[in-house]
Amino acid sequence: MLGSTHGTLTTDSRRARAIACGETPQQIVHGRPAEAGDLDVSGRPLYAAVPDLDRFFRPESMAVVGASDAEGRPNTGITRQLLAWAERVGARLHPVHPTRPSVFGIPCSPSVAALPEPVDLAVLLVSDPLPLIDELAEAKVKFAVAFASGFAETGEEGALAQQRLAAAVARSGGMRLLGPNTNLNAFERFRDDLDGPSIALITQSGHQGRPVFSLQELGIRLSHWAPTGNEADLETADFISYFAERPEVGAIACYIEGLKDGRSFLLAADRAARRGVPVVAVKVGRTEAGARTAATHTGKLTGADAVVDAAMRQYGVIRVDGLDELQDTATLLARARRPRAEAPSRPVADGVVVYSISGGTGAHFADLATEAGLRLPTLSEAKQSELHQWIPDYLNVANPVDNGGHPVGDWRGPRILDAILDDPAVGVLICPITGPFPPMSDKLAQDLVDAAERTDKLVCVVWGSPVGTEDAYRQTLLGSSRVATFRTFANCITAVRAHLDHARFTTAYRSPFDEAPRSPSPSFRKAKALMRPGQQLSEHAAKQLLRAYGIRVPREQLVTSAAAAVRAASLVGYPVVMKASGARIAHKTELGLVKIGLTSASQIRDAYRELTDIARYEDVSLDGVLVCQMVERGVEMVVGVTHDDLFGPTVTVGLGGVLVEVLRDTAVRVPPFGEDQARAMLAELRGRALLDGVRGAPPADVDALVEVVLRVQRMALELGDEIAELDINPLMVLPRGQGAVALDALAVCR
Amino acid sequence: MLGSTHGTLTTDSRRARAIACGETPQQIVHGRPAEAGDLDVSGRPLYAAVPDLDRFFRPESMAVVGASDAEGRPNTGITRQLLAWAERVGARLHPVHPTRPSVFGIPCSPSVAALPEPVDLAVLLVSDPLPLIDELAEAKVKFAVAFASGFAETGEEGALAQQRLAAAVARSGGMRLLGPNTNLNAFERFRDDLDGPSIALITQSGHQGRPVFSLQELGIRLSHWAPTGNEADLETADFISYFAERPEVGAIACYIEGLKDGRSFLLAADRAARRGVPVVAVKVGRTEAGARTAATHTGKLTGADAVVDAAMRQYGVIRVDGLDELQDTATLLARARRPRAEAPSRPVADGVVVYSISGGTGAHFADLATEAGLRLPTLSEAKQSELHQWIPDYLNVANPVDNGGHPVGDWRGPRILDAILDDPAVGVLICPITGPFPPMSDKLAQDLVDAAERTDKLVCVVWGSPVGTEDAYRQTLLGSSRVATFRTFANCITAVRAHLDHARFTTAYRSPFDEAPRSPSPSFRKAKALMRPGQQLSEHAAKQLLRAYGIRVPREQLVTSAAAAVRAASLVGYPVVMKASGARIAHKTELGLVKIGLTSASQIRDAYRELTDIARYEDVSLDGVLVCQMVERGVEMVVGVTHDDLFGPTVTVGLGGVLVEVLRDTAVRVPPFGEDQARAMLAELRGRALLDGVRGAPPADVDALVEVVLRVQRMALELGDEIAELDINPLMVLPRGQGAVALDALAVCR
Repeated sequence: MLGSTHGTLTTDSRRARAIACGETPQQIVHGRPAEAGDLDVSGRPLYAAVPDLDRFFRPESMAVVGASDAEGRPNTGITRQLLAWAERVGARLHPVHPTRPSVFGIPCSPSVAALPEPVDLAVLLVSDPLPLIDELAEAKVKFAVAFASGFAETGEEGALAQQRLAAAVARSGGMRLLGPNTNLNAFERFRDDLDGPSIALITQSGHQGRPVFSLQELGIRLSHWAPTGNEADLETADFISYFAERPEVGAIACYIEGLKDGRSFLLAADRAARRGVPVVAVKVGRTEAGARTAATHTGKLTGADAVVDAAMRQYGVIRVDGLDELQDTATLLARARRPRAEAPSRPVADGVVVYSISGGTGAHFADLATEAGLRLPTLSEAKQSELHQWIPDYLNVANPVDNGGHPVGDWRGPRILDAILDDPAVGVLICPITGPFPPMSDKLAQDLVDAAERTDKLVCVVWGSPVGTEDAYRQTLLGSSRVATFRTFANCITAVRAHLDHARFTTAYRSPFDEAPRSPSPSFRKAKALMRPGQQLSEHAAKQLLRAYGIRVPREQLVTSAAAAVRAASLVGYPVVMKASGARIAHKTELGLVKIGLTSASQIRDAYRELTDIARYEDVSLDGVLVCQMVERGVEMVVGVTHDDLFGPTVTVGLGGVLVEVLRDTAVRVPPFGEDQARAMLAELRGRALLDGVRGAPPADVDALVEVVLRVQRMALELGDEIAELDINPLMVLPRGQGAVALDALAVCR
Repeated sequence: MLGSTHGTLTTDSRRARAIACGETPQQIVHGRPAEAGDLDVSGRPLYAAVPDLDRFFRPESMAVVGASDAEGRPNTGITRQLLAWAERVGARLHPVHPTRPSVFGIPCSPSVAALPEPVDLAVLLVSDPLPLIDELAEAKVKFAVAFASGFAETGEEGALAQQRLAAAVARSGGMRLLGPNTNLNAFERFRDDLDGPSIALITQSGHQGRPVFSLQELGIRLSHWAPTGNEADLETADFISYFAERPEVGAIACYIEGLKDGRSFLLAADRAARRGVPVVAVKVGRTEAGARTAATHTGKLTGADAVVDAAMRQYGVIRVDGLDELQDTATLLARARRPRAEAPSRPVADGVVVYSISGGTGAHFADLATEAGLRLPTLSEAKQSELHQWIPDYLNVANPVDNGGHPVGDWRGPRILDAILDDPAVGVLICPITGPFPPMSDKLAQDLVDAAERTDKLVCVVWGSPVGTEDAYRQTLLGSSRVATFRTFANCITAVRAHLDHARFTTAYRSPFDEAPRSPSPSFRKAKALMRPGQQLSEHAAKQLLRAYGIRVPREQLVTSAAAAVRAASLVGYPVVMKASGARIAHKTELGLVKIGLTSASQIRDAYRELTDIARYEDVSLDGVLVCQMVERGVEMVVGVTHDDLFGPTVTVGLGGVLVEVLRDTAVRVPPFGEDQARAMLAELRGRALLDGVRGAPPADVDALVEVVLRVQRMALELGDEIAELDINPLMVLPRGQGAVALDALAVCR
């Protein structure tokens, strides 16, 4: 029962293209909200409906198929827990068993068909749920939950059984299934005495979800737990969408080992982003070893981690590594959430003030917070003077505010807190208390709790004692639903940063799905004609592909004789570059198949002879020699398309030359994305300063580079399923105002 | 009292050079252990004595000057705590007060001179300790502790008072002083009922040390707490040295805001490294803001953070960021420490096995552990078969070992643990328990504690529940002095990694102080003649300096006419490079003052004219034009010397060109260091793959590069106090076997 294995079957992301391209060209529609049925030009959905899960989490009536009250049977314990849960949520529970007359005194129905009333929810405690699906559908059951294991998590045969189960559910006419291989986590006892926005939890392992659920024992409100199991039908994305619409939910916490479908996840994350509801996720698979372990044990795809990471960032999903970070970040985000009524929410001031009874503690916290990117504004002279009414003059109150300890003990404590929180530059007050000293820290804790009640700003406390049984912590701080209390500096900083980043993100958010192209561009028909299924295109053909999408390439001609090369050179303009051209040439430079800086007819004739000689010698088949315009120096970049198993075609941009070769300095995005994300990609590059110009070089034409990235994205969307690989290397980005030129390109068709 | 501010006065690290260079050349002595009085060639000590602090921590007799039992006086509380402490450690306590006849019933001496016996320790509860110092020295007091504040932490005047205090102590004839501005932390109540190697704690803030001290409430043994205050005399380094020699100490934990003297710290860290005693430290100052805050509040130097970081790594000091990491890492390291008798210790197997009752938990932990660099070996087929006797076949036991939960409940649990710990490839077993499920986790916890008693390998548990009041955690796990229990995956991984790294480090450790040069090399006299105090040397002179230390420079001649340039070129050999040469030329390339690839006499004449024209036009004063051998292409590096306020001259190496300009891809070390560290510097570079050869380039001559780094270190040691800045940029590292050539150099004399 403890976090057993799960096996989601991954839907093939490369869906059949739904649009008959070129034959029935549709009007290109941009910039309207997506609706059910809308597909982007790659054939992927632009819209996902929110499943109505109200009756799943709060059924009026439910059946337990395979219910038992026989001593020692595992189903007996489960039945007992379901009975207790039904009573709590006010559901009528009907046991179903072929032979028992009653279970725990409640009359049993011999079959689902014989139930006394239609039920919202049927929990299936049987080893093979498949034969029951049609009967459940017939009885108009809204939700089924299958605990049985032995499906995709066990290998190929189980995966087939799971496919049959999913198919049966799909033709049931609307019934939704949770599982198989799920558990009782949805039917746990939730505390109903806690205040404030809640955390809703989605996990693919019961054991891994337990610590988040246990937060209730620390006074943190949880409203839901969806243990998604193998996700034959309902998946993580469905629950994210549903929770994003629930008014009581302040933050969604996820533990994910693998995703069933990349696009579904992004559409759900998009919904949460539109609603401003933060999603915090642990996603296993940072390392190949980790991904492999997770994959072996779940049968799920984990996706290339850099792509997962980028996709999450595109939609504001906050990725964390540890379950402790998941708990602490979700807690802070839920507590920071304003009541929905208050929309449109005021922008959150991002200034953080550190307040401490020890200068050392303040300095240490400030050091780590600044390193993590939090902004600690220096308080104004006026504010500092105000604070010095209560804090001795020799102490630093610029931020961090060091009160020296004593003012905490009397009436000055609350005044100081209110004065800090009253400053419009301050959005967050953090008080790290590393050593509890009850005469001081007990009152400080109470003052912080009281001050948090008087403000709508965030008040955070770090209770640094490793003991954690102190009253000030257990009773006072955890007793408050306004203060967010942490145990470590690091987790406090991670959570506060996540909150401020998320606030900025949602304020600026525009859904890329509204802007995504729904039908092919005029470029597509031209490009289509250049495709050679299964083959690598020649450099010349690959550049024609780029040109079809409006990406600049050098003036060039493909020639098959030295004389033609000389004629081409005078058309292209001296100096020229000459390159061998053919469908299968890689490593041209290493082979000596590129000649640069040719300035005369005789040099061109020599070069032609040499290139064809080398090609013969190296047994390389040529379709000719390219005579190309020589492009002046700029910043060398790489832009390309690669295919991710989970998300489909992705766009990569990197710094060329040694930076991409040695440091793999690249950024990736999952289409569709807008110009903001194209610019964000560049900002992620470690060597981005090169684009601004170093050592006296002029700034590069970043706008032109962004335009190329967006055009390549269009190619990824329109051709992604027909192109195995596309690489512009190098893309020479010229000085500002002069554009960018693709000097070489590689394209491999599927 | 709570972690007030501290102000160590930083000794000027640039000590007066003790050796009269050149005049009385000493024999160069390398490779013998350093002794008292030994200095390296830079004049810094190679040896630090271990202060005998036995009678500080365990005095037989002590005085409390300013003792009080008057109601409401702060000194009364302090006196009471000191009395309790004296009773615990068995010290006879003598109150000293000019007027009181007795304090708490103990007869008072009117002065130190009037004490009934010589005392080991005098605690000074007076506002100005200075007037007492001579009297204390007279009375042969071994240790004084000054609580008074108002010294260096308050500014310039306080700093002067502190200097006077330090001077008085220095002439006292052996008395040592702790403080001023320290507190009662050394006189706390330590638990004496705890087993195993202890943690010894050194802090510059009481509040920040409290959480480590509180570990005793979780069953972790602490033996000492040294609150160093302003370090007028005794400093952090003294306590590190002392604790490194104590048999009961398993790990030394430090909280450092600033260091008094760089070399003292390194000598103490060296002693700990020789003894194999791990030192774990939080050092504030990751960011400039943090360093500034710490400096403002303590009056201490924090040093350039990258240099502090490197210096700590050179001596195996484990730097962590959070107090929670300090606690968890020190705890693990103490528990991992073998009894001293068992030396020479066997090498520690570095294989980590993750054992879990949930496949999800195992996969998640393995992912993060692998990402952090831990090695999770796949268990042998034989071991896996053995485990499958007790664990169902469908579960993965290759590592992570997933037991599926049930085997934990019965006799199989201990067998599995013993079988894993019995594997010679395994050094560490980690069991993450994220969700407590008492029927299972209570027995698992007990089994882990029992198994840890039967092995000398490390057994770690992560108790993932945020609640932390569960019996299995509080009673069972924390009740064991063998198991290291963590609350988060991250801290467990950090601590285990620190342990394995430290074991590897100490096994390979050779003290650089034994090998450090004690007297100048023959190069030094030549170099000395080139120095021009206060001036920047010309490129030509800077290269002569390099040549004096055996660093290769291109063949070159300094000429002052076009005709001489042509003659020089034929001596140097075509093609040549010509550069303007002068004492104050920076940015030669940008100004057009470098001409490369000159192949004929006419090109040389033109170049000479052009260079002198530009120099005239730019108003640059030349001492001539350099005609240099043109060196073929290799990997461009940068090697240099810079001065750190705390540690003196340091050596930096980096990848040249765009990598150093854009990415600041450099590594730094504090001399003295050996070849191993020079190689480690290269391994730290992000772009290090360039040295191995990329895109078909041949591997570079790394040995020659290492040799240059070591020769530059020699320059740093011998000339460090006379050179403000030295930069070789670029150092062209040629293909393997061909050496490295300094193409350009900059040297600025002090």
